[in-house]
Amino acid sequence: MKKILLSASLSMALLFSSALADNALVLQTDFSLKDGAVSAMKGVAFGVDNNLKIFDLTHEITPYDIWEAAYRLHQTAQYWPPGTVFVSVVDPGVGTKRLSVVLKTKNGQYFVSPDNGSLTLVAETLGIESIRQINEKTNRLEGSEKSYTFHGRDVYAYTGARLASGAIKFEDVGQLLDPKVESISYQKASLNKDELNGNIPTLDIQYGNVWSNISDELLIKSGVVNGDTLCVQIKHNDELKYDGKAPYVSSFGDVKEGEPMIYLNSLLNVSIALNMENFAEKNKIASGAQWSITLKKCN
Amino acid sequence: MKKILLSASLSMALLFSSALADNALVLQTDFSLKDGAVSAMKGVAFGVDNNLKIFDLTHEITPYDIWEAAYRLHQTAQYWPPGTVFVSVVDPGVGTKRLSVVLKTKNGQYFVSPDNGSLTLVAETLGIESIRQINEKTNRLEGSEKSYTFHGRDVYAYTGARLASGAIKFEDVGQLLDPKVESISYQKASLNKDELNGNIPTLDIQYGNVWSNISDELLIKSGVVNGDTLCVQIKHNDELKYDGKAPYVSSFGDVKEGEPMIYLNSLLNVSIALNMENFAEKNKIASGAQWSITLKKCN
Amino acid sequence: MKKILLSASLSMALLFSSALADNALVLQTDFSLKDGAVSAMKGVAFGVDNNLKIFDLTHEITPYDIWEAAYRLHQTAQYWPPGTVFVSVVDPGVGTKRLSVVLKTKNGQYFVSPDNGSLTLVAETLGIESIRQINEKTNRLEGSEKSYTFHGRDVYAYTGARLASGAIKFEDVGQLLDPKVESISYQKASLNKDELNGNIPTLDIQYGNVWSNISDELLIKSGVVNGDTLCVQIKHNDELKYDGKAPYVSSFGDVKEGEPMIYLNSLLNVSIALNMENFAEKNKIASGAQWSITLKKCN
Repeated sequence: MKKILLSASLSMALLFSSALADNALVLQTDFSLKDGAVSAMKGVAFGVDNNLKIFDLTHEITPYDIWEAAYRLHQTAQYWPPGTVFVSVVDPGVGTKRLSVVLKTKNGQYFVSPDNGSLTLVAETLGIESIRQINEKTNRLEGSEKSYTFHGRDVYAYTGARLASGAIKFEDVGQLLDPKVESISYQKASLNKDELNGNIPTLDIQYGNVWSNISDELLIKSGVVNGDTLCVQIKHNDELKYDGKAPYVSSFGDVKEGEPMIYLNSLLNVSIALNMENFAEKNKIASGAQWSITLKKCN
Repeated sequence: MKKILLSASLSMALLFSSALADNALVLQTDFSLKDGAVSAMKGVAFGVDNNLKIFDLTHEITPYDIWEAAYRLHQTAQYWPPGTVFVSVVDPGVGTKRLSVVLKTKNGQYFVSPDNGSLTLVAETLGIESIRQINEKTNRLEGSEKSYTFHGRDVYAYTGARLASGAIKFEDVGQLLDPKVESISYQKASLNKDELNGNIPTLDIQYGNVWSNISDELLIKSGVVNGDTLCVQIKHNDELKYDGKAPYVSSFGDVKEGEPMIYLNSLLNVSIALNMENFAEKNKIASGAQWSITLKKCN
Repeated sequence: MKKILLSASLSMALLFSSALADNALVLQTDFSLKDGAVSAMKGVAFGVDNNLKIFDLTHEITPYDIWEAAYRLHQTAQYWPPGTVFVSVVDPGVGTKRLSVVLKTKNGQYFVSPDNGSLTLVAETLGIESIRQINEKTNRLEGSEKSYTFHGRDVYAYTGARLASGAIKFEDVGQLLDPKVESISYQKASLNKDELNGNIPTLDIQYGNVWSNISDELLIKSGVVNGDTLCVQIKHNDELKYDGKAPYVSSFGDVKEGEPMIYLNSLLNVSIALNMENFAEKNKIASGAQWSITLKKCN
């Protein structure tokens, strides 16, 4: 009977160890998938725990574009469960004094990243539980001490994998920092009388739809209802780039092909598109902190 | 002893629960991997079952190209085991009356998709076992009721993940529909006397090889044997786009670099290529329902 | 009690069987992710063992570029644990006499590939333990005998998956070959008096940084220290393509935006870049066997 006792205990131990690896590790970079960099990161993570569940957010962030990194984390994190560990490596300042941190948000997710603005939006929307600076002496792939340039692999992927697998606890990451992150300033959404103002944080690239940061709630508060025709202006800094009208509808099928429409995107933010065509390309609209949008009911 | 009994049962239960997640979930979209949409879908699926095996078919379908979606499912499904759940989201009609369905094919695979033609080819080649309409009241990510535009994430990925993990049975998807799907019409392969006629369903994009839907069996039936020189015509609608000769060979090494050749592709369909060069680009050939090919032994 | 004995044994058996699949299968091709070819390979691998951990190295190898395939394996393999099985399919000679092999390196990794030069660098840097020719009669996906063109799926992915999962042992691959591989000749790194000579094996594509094969150790041996200004020449065959100066620094933050810098890349090889700009594009530098670089301290 002793052998069975042992077997049963062992099997429980193995199951438990595997359970520790049940948090997803989700990777985001601006490396693209053209070379071996992302695969090296995954190899390091797999070496930490070969039961780890490793996923990609995207590796197509525009090189050095911290705002885009911030936006993709914001867009995606809410669809992953608590305990998920995100590693984001968009790091134009690698080797400078920017800190390497792990942000724990109030919903129990972790974000491993340089503190360079990449955490702007998740800190705001998910809330900061606490932030620790990564102690690179204790949290660094063995043998990587000589390399000064690939924090993404040697420190971030390694630390993210150890956190997700339970090999270290959040407390083992390093010292607590003040609960704030480096933030990129951008125009918040607002309602001024009957006029909605907002920023264009990103485009729905594949289709050319233009997204704003104006929520469905703000839209409703402004009194706009389904079927209303809205007057829309889009500016790059102070320069008017688009001036037009479009109906507020609930789906793409509600307007003819090629016609403009206002709708709520998958994040329930006010967006503008051409049905079956590329609004951004046709009207030369891009996105970022310098782009703004104004909407109101046409008279 | 009671504790061990419990442990053993528990361990069996855990193993069983994990076994339920042994069906692959395979995702296809026209979203690209540039933004966070595919990652949000995977987050939702992972939230359903963190032992689920999640794979990509491709996310590079040409935006809105239902025929391409249909062809990729057809090309790939046969290499995945029974029980595999495919989620295909190429959905220009999102928000219109097209139905959201799960097709169960005769080989025991599942296809979660809008019924908009994406299922044309797998229904034909794998056979329809039965089709159910997704009941979006019971099969929808909690909290997503307000969103009208991201069925791919809120309904399709969620339902696919629940099917693959065993959280729901096929019967729980929704009501049975008539066993037929929306079909795109295309030219079937045929042998007319000694002339083979067919469609060009797709290109082997990376290399520029031109694929037809003419099977090896039909080729053999036409009397063509290895080493024969074939006369080939390619048309777009009625316009002749290519008129040439090429030998039927068994591999790329059989002709010189830059020379044309007829061969059986990885699906055992008759194809035409230039060894080490791009046939499609050089001869301006594309693919789709409007493209046809004719082959016969040269006199 | 018998039932429990059985349960415990069964659970151990299942755990053991799952443990056999703990080696990663890492796939590299020049197929891109635009069509279903890579997904078909994964389906075949998943069909072998649905607990297999399947990863991508890259599928964006330039079509037919064996040197690039060789370099990506070299760049990445060291970050994956022993036991990892790499499948590399860049195979312009498919159907010709090139052999299909599995290379076992001295660090206990496996490389499934055509022996066409793709194994040049891992054979050199990791060392050849032994090489076996794949016996395609015993190691071929059932039902695939008719296809002459998709070795990547029917033989390589299938054999790699069976090796990684423990379904076959290395000995079952096929007969032993002489312990050598087909090698691409390229310029080795060397120090001649105070002049460093080397090859440009690849670019850091996303950022346009130019990598050499000159190691940190050779650089140190040449007497160069941090802060030294180096005179750099880059040639394509005998043609001078770049002639300039740059400081040797430890990180990108050490020079101003747009300025050139010499640094150690993530493989600790000497590299040249513009901080925040694209060196290769600006100076029209590419990579490959015909590209060489010379560095020495400026007088």
